[in-house]
Amino acid sequence: RMQSSRSKPCSCPSLKLREVASMYFTLVAAFLVILVVALQGSAPRQSDFPYKVPLDPQGLLELSWNVSYPEQAVHFQLLIRELHFGLLFGMSDRGEFENADLAVLWSDGHNSYFGDAWSDAKGQLHMDSQQDYQLLGARRAPEGLYLLFRRAFSTCDPKDYLIEDGTVHLIYGILEKPVHSLQAINVSALHGGLQRVQLLKPNISIPQLPRDMKSMEITAPDVVIPSQETTYWCYMAELPEGFSKHHIIMYEPVVTAGNEALVHHMEVFQCAADFDSFPRYNGPCDSKMKPERLNYCRHVLAAWAMGAQAFYYPEEAGLAFGGPGSSRYLRLEIHYHNPLVLKGRRDSSGIRLYYTATLRPYDAGIMELGLVYTPVMAIPPGEDSFILTGYCTDKCTQLALPSAGIRIFASQLHTHLAGRKVVTVLSRHGRERQVVNADSHYSPHFQEIRMLKEVVAVFPGDELITTCTYNTEDRSRATVGGFGILEEMCVNYVHYYPQTQLELCKSAVDPGYLHRYFNLVNRFNDEEVCMCSQVSVPQQFYSIPWNTFNRDVLRSLYGFAPISVHCNKSSAVRFPGQWEKQPLPSITERLREPSPRCPPSPGAQPAAPIALHLGQLRRV
Amino acid sequence: RMQSSRSKPCSCPSLKLREVASMYFTLVAAFLVILVVALQGSAPRQSDFPYKVPLDPQGLLELSWNVSYPEQAVHFQLLIRELHFGLLFGMSDRGEFENADLAVLWSDGHNSYFGDAWSDAKGQLHMDSQQDYQLLGARRAPEGLYLLFRRAFSTCDPKDYLIEDGTVHLIYGILEKPVHSLQAINVSALHGGLQRVQLLKPNISIPQLPRDMKSMEITAPDVVIPSQETTYWCYMAELPEGFSKHHIIMYEPVVTAGNEALVHHMEVFQCAADFDSFPRYNGPCDSKMKPERLNYCRHVLAAWAMGAQAFYYPEEAGLAFGGPGSSRYLRLEIHYHNPLVLKGRRDSSGIRLYYTATLRPYDAGIMELGLVYTPVMAIPPGEDSFILTGYCTDKCTQLALPSAGIRIFASQLHTHLAGRKVVTVLSRHGRERQVVNADSHYSPHFQEIRMLKEVVAVFPGDELITTCTYNTEDRSRATVGGFGILEEMCVNYVHYYPQTQLELCKSAVDPGYLHRYFNLVNRFNDEEVCMCSQVSVPQQFYSIPWNTFNRDVLRSLYGFAPISVHCNKSSAVRFPGQWEKQPLPSITERLREPSPRCPPSPGAQPAAPIALHLGQLRRV
Repeated sequence: RMQSSRSKPCSCPSLKLREVASMYFTLVAAFLVILVVALQGSAPRQSDFPYKVPLDPQGLLELSWNVSYPEQAVHFQLLIRELHFGLLFGMSDRGEFENADLAVLWSDGHNSYFGDAWSDAKGQLHMDSQQDYQLLGARRAPEGLYLLFRRAFSTCDPKDYLIEDGTVHLIYGILEKPVHSLQAINVSALHGGLQRVQLLKPNISIPQLPRDMKSMEITAPDVVIPSQETTYWCYMAELPEGFSKHHIIMYEPVVTAGNEALVHHMEVFQCAADFDSFPRYNGPCDSKMKPERLNYCRHVLAAWAMGAQAFYYPEEAGLAFGGPGSSRYLRLEIHYHNPLVLKGRRDSSGIRLYYTATLRPYDAGIMELGLVYTPVMAIPPGEDSFILTGYCTDKCTQLALPSAGIRIFASQLHTHLAGRKVVTVLSRHGRERQVVNADSHYSPHFQEIRMLKEVVAVFPGDELITTCTYNTEDRSRATVGGFGILEEMCVNYVHYYPQTQLELCKSAVDPGYLHRYFNLVNRFNDEEVCMCSQVSVPQQFYSIPWNTFNRDVLRSLYGFAPISVHCNKSSAVRFPGQWEKQPLPSITERLREPSPRCPPSPGAQPAAPIALHLGQLRRV
Repeated sequence: RMQSSRSKPCSCPSLKLREVASMYFTLVAAFLVILVVALQGSAPRQSDFPYKVPLDPQGLLELSWNVSYPEQAVHFQLLIRELHFGLLFGMSDRGEFENADLAVLWSDGHNSYFGDAWSDAKGQLHMDSQQDYQLLGARRAPEGLYLLFRRAFSTCDPKDYLIEDGTVHLIYGILEKPVHSLQAINVSALHGGLQRVQLLKPNISIPQLPRDMKSMEITAPDVVIPSQETTYWCYMAELPEGFSKHHIIMYEPVVTAGNEALVHHMEVFQCAADFDSFPRYNGPCDSKMKPERLNYCRHVLAAWAMGAQAFYYPEEAGLAFGGPGSSRYLRLEIHYHNPLVLKGRRDSSGIRLYYTATLRPYDAGIMELGLVYTPVMAIPPGEDSFILTGYCTDKCTQLALPSAGIRIFASQLHTHLAGRKVVTVLSRHGRERQVVNADSHYSPHFQEIRMLKEVVAVFPGDELITTCTYNTEDRSRATVGGFGILEEMCVNYVHYYPQTQLELCKSAVDPGYLHRYFNLVNRFNDEEVCMCSQVSVPQQFYSIPWNTFNRDVLRSLYGFAPISVHCNKSSAVRFPGQWEKQPLPSITERLREPSPRCPPSPGAQPAAPIALHLGQLRRV
């Protein structure tokens, strides 16, 4: 903490008292303090900030950070390559500039200040009554200005963002003119943008890697990035002929230098083994020229998104590829995000797979949890947070899991455009035991495979309950479940070992009960919703008049009606048993919301900006 | 705040600093502090603590208090006539000892301590991390020990009770043995009890009283209080013959000295003018000997409950009684609460009416808001908080209120045994404007007429929405609306002026829609709920299988279906107009929950008990 530079006014007796006193002197002292320590300090080492992401499409702002779980805090290092008259950096629910929690560096042309602020619903900035972005230092370097600051996960200030697991929407804004006070800033008018990251990276020790480990780069061969905002690029690669079964034990991104802000995410898919060969292709995924058969390359081998690092399999497991029954063909998909419509940029990014012929004890598997892709699960239009839940029941895990259980070590959440939150909870004997993976700021535009903080053991008889929250405020008709981009999904692809036959453990409401619902809506509202059997479920949903009663009753139906369970070996083959009209799993004990740990009271500083001596800033 | 008696350790520079320092010295200082100021001080004046209530049935504990709205705090003076080894005093949601917020005075036989504590769900006491019951002094007097302490309405400590308008359940417990630490106390095992009071009395200036004011005592003539826990005593009184129209402008309780803890509440009713005479009676209200005709004495003239003070009508209005069209007969009803089953106690309590022949500009009136007494409004069994709402619609106020509006100055909330909360909100053009009266800890055993903090003006076109919350966890069948004690009501009797013809402005769900609900339940659940038209609504409710779907849909029905509005001149005569199948008033803007004001941080003290020098305590 900052110390007052005044001499002690009297020999007050206790250390505690001195600390408290310094709190009250901050207002006076702030204007005398020069950040001596920070300015004299040496450059922080790379390893101090292991995670890095560009904030803007030009890469002028670069954020590095680390996570201290013992301190429950994140340390940020922000590199500002071209400083104008300051900048805003912060977090908000979904990347909006209103109702955001912001660290602000601003200059009136002579002096510079740093403070913790928040923006109201109109984008107006206010100084926070409690200063929770703690400035640790500022440093000029040839490449730009480095700002170092710290933020606790939770501050207990209701105006502050709570840093949680899962997606965090970072926002930034550039101050292009001198600013005379924080209150004079309206963020809605600023040049700025958002970047999604998983801020709280899990603190996982890296497994030992075998000596015979080899690597293989699946990279796009010198692509000219199209001069349009969004491009999905497809490139077909092949494994060598006769490539035997190996285990992928790690993978990492290969991003062409200079393109860090353009390569948004990348995935490597393996093609279906049903076909002997696949055509070569190197072009946009939505091109008319793309061969139809590439649609059969959907088995995920690796996935990376901006801000993610290398992905490691647990020591006991690897992802099998190669050998009989496995296709030699791979598809690389790269999402280029080029909002500045840069032209002629060349790129050879991709993913580097690390694999070994010395097979590990277990094959890793991927299992699909959540909702079946069916229109019987629907969301009324105009809902700000409508919840749908998919169940993997005790009956299915009892039948399909080995008695020693499985270990889930990673998870990829998936919805289409209306998805806002996703969570999977493990429940045992009706009692919720553990969150498998949760994202309260989920974005369909940021679907990473995330390593879990702790491996989750699932035993026969356990239930895995996946809940998705949707927003359909911008829609005028119901959104039904399905494959289309305007239809919805609620899926958690969990990565686990040892691999089992269970590929899919999902549910949907019993169609008979849904029929009763349509019937009820018809009779109750004196409406002519066509109940004729030739009309499809989506058509029936589209014809419902969405009053509060019909909305409420649909919600009640999903919380009450029995379910149809898909407990499948593959998408078409069920395990033997009765899976229709199954009772909804009942929960007798919920997990408690973790009560936020707040920093001890002396940690927070009073609401006064801190003056910095950065020299005079200028228009660049 | 208590001051340390030590000499200042150094000349620390600022007042603020000293205050903060004293916080940190408390731990050390507490053991040196003798409550010098308080012990030397003179007895607090009566007017310092205008409100008084006995806590226990013997009156051994007597609480006086005042309310400071500028400070947002209550000052308590607790008189302990017989101190054993300490006592607990505090507040909880409904008077339970678990999850309570408590001030504790305890003695280990040598020293005494005071602290702010809370009890967990098992009744175990814990020291509060923030000390919000602030001890101001302790004083020995011939009648016992006085403890003075202060508590802010809101402390922002989640373990603390939030003091709000309406009923507060005070609890007390006696420590009969020495206690070595606060943690050693389990409140569930203590001798103690509860007392309900309106802690936050409104801060109303007393209107000027006329010179010709007279008074009349309606008191029970030397009743021997029956030796049973609960007695409702009925006594018939008469106005003098030829008593002309007067205005009651004030009334106050007359409680026989010594019986303060036994007289729980009292009401004076005027009988119906339809009958020329009523029999005399002086006996229990439930006696077989009570003449039937006394049931026609139901028009409330005055109501008082323990802890209440005098009731004043606003300067411009009075409650008319006497004169033509007004019965000469009055019924006094006294609720004696005698849990110790004392024998032979004599009582002549009652109410003193103050009235004037110089009529004030306006007659006061009473209007009934909320739900119609009908079984169509029902609560499923096993609900912990089921909500029903009654509407006084814009259409009715448009028709029945004068263009200058009416002024509501007092309110009496009413439900039967399942009622837990009641609130009436005024809404204008679909926007909630003002709370008329709210009680979040409502008890059917504590129904006072409460003067409002501010008079509420209601104009034609306004809506008055009354919402009741019920708990039916102890019931196994549905609770329907009605007059019976096991049926429910949701009523707010509002006292207002000038009197209008509108006596009753209430609603209930449209019976046709309820019929559709029964139909739906029948079909949806494949249940045999008898729909035969000869079966009554209560019988239909009783036969519903209460699964989550049927509960949810009933809730949705009440939030959606049109209503039948009773906009009546008297309970049987409606204003002319169409009152069936009226749309539910829609609310486009809700009142915001007031965000609690917390004491500034130096106000709270660290979690250490304060030692008191009371001399040695003893078993009495």
